[in-house]
Amino acid sequence: MENTTLSATATAITPEQLLKHWQGHRGLTRRMIEAFPEDQLFTFSIGGMRPFSALLMEFFSMAFPSVYGVVTGEWVANDVLLKDAGVETKPTNKAEFLQLWDAVTEKLNEWWPKINAADFNKEIKAFDQYDGTVIGILLYIIDNEIHHRGQAYVYLRALNVEPPPFWDRSQDL
Amino acid sequence: MENTTLSATATAITPEQLLKHWQGHRGLTRRMIEAFPEDQLFTFSIGGMRPFSALLMEFFSMAFPSVYGVVTGEWVANDVLLKDAGVETKPTNKAEFLQLWDAVTEKLNEWWPKINAADFNKEIKAFDQYDGTVIGILLYIIDNEIHHRGQAYVYLRALNVEPPPFWDRSQDL
Repeated sequence: MENTTLSATATAITPEQLLKHWQGHRGLTRRMIEAFPEDQLFTFSIGGMRPFSALLMEFFSMAFPSVYGVVTGEWVANDVLLKDAGVETKPTNKAEFLQLWDAVTEKLNEWWPKINAADFNKEIKAFDQYDGTVIGILLYIIDNEIHHRGQAYVYLRALNVEPPPFWDRSQDL
Repeated sequence: MENTTLSATATAITPEQLLKHWQGHRGLTRRMIEAFPEDQLFTFSIGGMRPFSALLMEFFSMAFPSVYGVVTGEWVANDVLLKDAGVETKPTNKAEFLQLWDAVTEKLNEWWPKINAADFNKEIKAFDQYDGTVIGILLYIIDNEIHHRGQAYVYLRALNVEPPPFWDRSQDL
């Protein structure tokens, strides 16, 4: 019986490790915001793709609202969730982006441990519209950040700015 | 005691799920190879960055060699590991890239289950030079593929080619 239980819960990543991994990636994305020329943040584009500011707004729209939704079953946007956090949820300059980023970092650290470990394989309808498992949704959001941040690396290189190194994620596993 | 054991093995992702997740991403990267104009594969660049062919060679250099290395403790390159697979390990056209890709897909499916589930947190020296845990190294390789593939999305858009949708990873969780 004990062996059966162990085998059923074979673990590649624990919840704590996955949060640490994500926050490591988020630290890198934060350094990308710092490195990005402020006058290009809302405008620079290649091939008709969205500017970095729009990609960041997409990250924000999913990061804390997804974890909050997984924990509570309620899908609520940042302007409501962060009402009392004292940050601008629709940033219009780099400083506001960084402040919002840091507020979300704290919220993720506070709310992630509330996810029931038994729920990672639970089927949910994320944001009341996307069917998937909890882990599937969370990995999607992490991967989406890596994917679009890779896009922003090309923007920075095209702007002749050296991006922060991809391998350096000091909070990583 | 039983609770302690359960808590120590809380699982966000199982080894089987992580392989499925990676192969889902690899299926998307394969569709990027198919979509990429063959005459630009070895040459197209933005901001001095490497062409897509060089990024693909980096993926190849890590994917199967890392899993083989984790299982055996030996760090060996594809030209040796795939000697009998009947594929070109230094592709010079799109068809050869796809053949090598598919050979690696099979090898990953064959070798990943040989990873001892208890070893994911083991400290290793990957490729005889990078210190980290097994899970840390494997996640790095998966994330690196997502990151550079995001770069290739910008190349495709700049070449006025519609890339395959990021969200479609039919083998995904």
